[in-house]
Amino acid sequence: MRSDRLGETLLPKKLALPVFASDALSSVAYAPDEILLTLGLAGGALVLTSSWKIALAVVAVMVVVIMSYRQNVHAYPSGGGDYEVASVNLGPKAGLTVGSALLVDYVLTVAVSVSSGVQNAGSAFGFIRGHEATVAVVIIVLLTAMNLRGVRESGAAFAVPVYLFMASVIGMALFGLYRQLNGDLPPSPSAGLELQPETGYETIGGFALVFLLLRAFSSGCAALTGVEAISNGVPAFKKPKSKNAATTLLLMGSIAITMLVSMMALSRWTGVKIAEDPATQLTLDGVPVGDTYVQDTVMGQVSKAVFDGFPLGVVLVSVFTGLILVLAANTAFNGFPVLGSILARDGFLPRQLHTRGDRLAFSNGIIILAAAAAALVLVYNAEVTRLIQLYIVGVFVSFTLSQIGMVRHWTRHLAVERNPQARSHMVRSRIINGIGAVMCGTVLVVVLLTKFTHGAGYAIAAMAVLFVMMMGIRKHYDRVRDELRVDEADTKQQLLPSRVHAIVLVSKIHKPTLRALAYARATRPSILEALTVDVDPDETRALQAEWDRRDIPVPLKALDSPFREITRPIVDYVKSIRSGNPRDLVVVYIPEYVLGHWWEQILHNQSALRLKGRLLFTPGVMVSSVPWQLASAEGFEDRLDGPVVGDVRRGEG
Amino acid sequence: MRSDRLGETLLPKKLALPVFASDALSSVAYAPDEILLTLGLAGGALVLTSSWKIALAVVAVMVVVIMSYRQNVHAYPSGGGDYEVASVNLGPKAGLTVGSALLVDYVLTVAVSVSSGVQNAGSAFGFIRGHEATVAVVIIVLLTAMNLRGVRESGAAFAVPVYLFMASVIGMALFGLYRQLNGDLPPSPSAGLELQPETGYETIGGFALVFLLLRAFSSGCAALTGVEAISNGVPAFKKPKSKNAATTLLLMGSIAITMLVSMMALSRWTGVKIAEDPATQLTLDGVPVGDTYVQDTVMGQVSKAVFDGFPLGVVLVSVFTGLILVLAANTAFNGFPVLGSILARDGFLPRQLHTRGDRLAFSNGIIILAAAAAALVLVYNAEVTRLIQLYIVGVFVSFTLSQIGMVRHWTRHLAVERNPQARSHMVRSRIINGIGAVMCGTVLVVVLLTKFTHGAGYAIAAMAVLFVMMMGIRKHYDRVRDELRVDEADTKQQLLPSRVHAIVLVSKIHKPTLRALAYARATRPSILEALTVDVDPDETRALQAEWDRRDIPVPLKALDSPFREITRPIVDYVKSIRSGNPRDLVVVYIPEYVLGHWWEQILHNQSALRLKGRLLFTPGVMVSSVPWQLASAEGFEDRLDGPVVGDVRRGEG
Repeated sequence: MRSDRLGETLLPKKLALPVFASDALSSVAYAPDEILLTLGLAGGALVLTSSWKIALAVVAVMVVVIMSYRQNVHAYPSGGGDYEVASVNLGPKAGLTVGSALLVDYVLTVAVSVSSGVQNAGSAFGFIRGHEATVAVVIIVLLTAMNLRGVRESGAAFAVPVYLFMASVIGMALFGLYRQLNGDLPPSPSAGLELQPETGYETIGGFALVFLLLRAFSSGCAALTGVEAISNGVPAFKKPKSKNAATTLLLMGSIAITMLVSMMALSRWTGVKIAEDPATQLTLDGVPVGDTYVQDTVMGQVSKAVFDGFPLGVVLVSVFTGLILVLAANTAFNGFPVLGSILARDGFLPRQLHTRGDRLAFSNGIIILAAAAAALVLVYNAEVTRLIQLYIVGVFVSFTLSQIGMVRHWTRHLAVERNPQARSHMVRSRIINGIGAVMCGTVLVVVLLTKFTHGAGYAIAAMAVLFVMMMGIRKHYDRVRDELRVDEADTKQQLLPSRVHAIVLVSKIHKPTLRALAYARATRPSILEALTVDVDPDETRALQAEWDRRDIPVPLKALDSPFREITRPIVDYVKSIRSGNPRDLVVVYIPEYVLGHWWEQILHNQSALRLKGRLLFTPGVMVSSVPWQLASAEGFEDRLDGPVVGDVRRGEG
Repeated sequence: MRSDRLGETLLPKKLALPVFASDALSSVAYAPDEILLTLGLAGGALVLTSSWKIALAVVAVMVVVIMSYRQNVHAYPSGGGDYEVASVNLGPKAGLTVGSALLVDYVLTVAVSVSSGVQNAGSAFGFIRGHEATVAVVIIVLLTAMNLRGVRESGAAFAVPVYLFMASVIGMALFGLYRQLNGDLPPSPSAGLELQPETGYETIGGFALVFLLLRAFSSGCAALTGVEAISNGVPAFKKPKSKNAATTLLLMGSIAITMLVSMMALSRWTGVKIAEDPATQLTLDGVPVGDTYVQDTVMGQVSKAVFDGFPLGVVLVSVFTGLILVLAANTAFNGFPVLGSILARDGFLPRQLHTRGDRLAFSNGIIILAAAAAALVLVYNAEVTRLIQLYIVGVFVSFTLSQIGMVRHWTRHLAVERNPQARSHMVRSRIINGIGAVMCGTVLVVVLLTKFTHGAGYAIAAMAVLFVMMMGIRKHYDRVRDELRVDEADTKQQLLPSRVHAIVLVSKIHKPTLRALAYARATRPSILEALTVDVDPDETRALQAEWDRRDIPVPLKALDSPFREITRPIVDYVKSIRSGNPRDLVVVYIPEYVLGHWWEQILHNQSALRLKGRLLFTPGVMVSSVPWQLASAEGFEDRLDGPVVGDVRRGEG
């Protein structure tokens, strides 16, 4: 895609909704499960009495977060995102904290979404069971390949599965509601089971009970991930951008809440029982169901109840759920590399991450994301419940800092704004963002308290490592920049070396040597000499004799090498020239072979490479490679044309 | 060590024996076991009736091989070794076959010797049991480190453990013989057990019996490995070299035969019972001893019997046996890299293997040997019996071709020799080598027939792969040499390019850029221009403005890059210059940063590297790196001084 065509396609609301909403909406596939699982640790009774309350608490947080982000959308129509908001208003360290948190969370989005998608697909396609991790890794590899090839989904390609998912879930909810009111809603497959408390949770009360409720709430807050996506994407909306984005955000929030509430209601009506450890917690007539019991997801069990006698409905719900979860993972494949690119632009990550390849894909970022997510899936065996413990810490770090930043933003603007109407608007926004900040901060504390030992600690550790690493990289770039800056008053930099002393390295007389000599002579240096190292006196004598016989018009000097080394005598010789005439420039010409295959390269040039690496450390020396293209290199250039593109300009900053 | 001091230390016979004999003598630690184990497959009766015959057959082969190699030693006082003998007399393909076989066998020498050493040490140090593979790999790593550091044992350091081993084994034999004659030789720990035939071998006769006997003989021939070591090392002997070497060879053979026969006799007298599958084959009162039974080696069991009531004797035999086996492995650490270096000299392996490092160690060869041996030890879990199946195929390929080569050698010399006394000597030598060739060839056929499916097939496959690979490498080097050869009549090679067109790549104005410009100007090219790629129009405008403001006396050209690439526009521009003026030389100056740490390098220069790689494929272009040493690179040069030495001369052949 040409630069001048970038950013032409603006999205109407009906396309923007599916493009940005897949992550947020897809969490309805696992958030209810996590609430029920966690409460179920204390047995079926607590689920019945408390699951509604937990769901309502999650909905309340979601309402606040959506209202808050509507303010972000209006304040940052350029689509700053949480990283920008925190950096601008709270300083680079806050920004970097958000950046670290989001990088970790993008990895978890991929791991959780793909794992959950595979788990949900298992409800309809039983043969996946037992191979979840493998299937999940295959999907990650496919997503990676697709994104590396730069297949950029049009809004329409996104829209169809998202709308199908929304239609299937809401359709299922309506049909379920109808059957419930009609009194003929069948029970779910697990309705006949009893849910026993896990060992240690039999008699729970007081503080332990409150802690368990908070933990269930924390897990349920996974429903909030992806809400921030729209605030990053404001520039992609049709005008009026901010207004359309805010409307879409509200719409998305309403749909997400509707779906979450519907799923909680249906799971209750159909008597779904799920447990963290189904083999022992679930009993039939007092007997544990054992290891052979296969536990479907809430979505799977509800659909089997609602669509009882209509198996196609079950399959469709399962397929659409799997699809939207893969799309949700795919949003991370867009978000992670873009964030990496922004962090690289600001000097926190290696410049290579700032570079788009020829297909507009940030290849390095995509590969890093995929590798990290695949590793997580393998380590956690694609188990959503364990992965979810690491999740959302990052999201809430980011939410909280972003909202605090927004409060600062409004305070700063209020200091200069005189228009009373605008001021009252700003005060109102500041209150909303303030509530958002307090709410998100509280949730963050709850998440940390209840989940730290269950896995969130690892996420925090990963963020800390990223933070320290990125600070280190930034410091390095800053130091290099200061070191390289040209002093305005300093004109010495443009002084020319007084003389050029050219050296051509010679091992034997063949075409590459003659070419190197010809090239060196063409640059008309002040002094030109050929240099060989006397490792084997017989060979050196033969070389000298042939040199004389051919009348080569350049003197050949042989360096002693009592220890049969090559590199050291040459480096020492070059240094001795420099120390005698420090204003001279020494140019070392090295004949090099160019071959077409990597295994051919292994057979040549190793010592030349080593010598080049060594000479780079010697000041006042320039190394010139004189390539000789062998027959096998012909045509190889064209094969290189695909992948070899890059960004020297930025790479050298 | 300086070149002019190499090869000064010549060995007297009393030091040459231990230096060259450790491999040959150490096999007494496992050869008897393999004979007894294999015969034992058919039960204890066959062991009693046949083990002596097998041992005598092995001794007979050993006598013939030693007599044959005494001829080699006289014919090749320069210490040709089997590779040279086969190459000179039978052509390069025969030589390469021997080379492949020996490379494989050196790897197996390390794997078998170290595994056997660990197993033997287990007799005295029980805590090693169950961790054999780990201990073996640790020993290989230690040997590797020692050889990489170039610790070259003096003859004396070698001599002590070898003589201690010889003394302990022969002392044990004499003491055992004394006790046997005295009638008070105690039984070995396994003497009370019954040896049952393995399933399928209960009633064995006819062809199957002959086959089993041949298999036991094949395994016993492991005693012959290392016999050829002296014939490679003739130049290290004191004068008269050949005579001393032949005498030492005879001495070594006599000692090896004495030790082998002694061990066989002692194992019989003390009633040693060992089995391939001790848990089921060994029974006590008809009941299998089961998995908890720990089977000592023959050496271990015999020493426990002979030194009954004198545990220090058992420990010393175990320690000396372990030591000599490690020394035997160490001989491969010398032999493999030297052979690799000779093969590299002849163009069959990458030139790097021909290079000694600064400590005279062939580092690459040592690392390859260690990695292959460690892999084998891990794959075969350090089980000597399984490793031995792969062993000795290579040795006998090498023996056989070497002896056939010797027959050719004498025939060739007989064709020109007129002196009747010398002629009769040669005829006698030819007969001996002829017998050697027939004997070794027969053993090779027997080994292949009896062991191919037990593992020797893998060894043959490895040799075939090495052979094909080395032929391919040789062909490649030959093709490159022909392509690069300077035609004697061709004077065009020395023609100078008509003009030099210099290009300095610029991304921003900093010190490295100014240095590159100064260096480029110092070479006074016909045309000099600075080049930037217009990826971001704003940045390019800013660069141009600063360029003008600073009055840099070189024109700055900006290349369009509609697809935001860097490499392609530059390469295309360079090509367009060349196509307009094909006799011009284009020199591209690339400013490069030099940093001290590898992780710093990752943060820079990536696009410059990519561009350099790409420009090497464009004919008529020379790439000059203008290094800028950053502060972190200072002092780094000195740290490089250790490892960075090499051999450009050979590397460029």
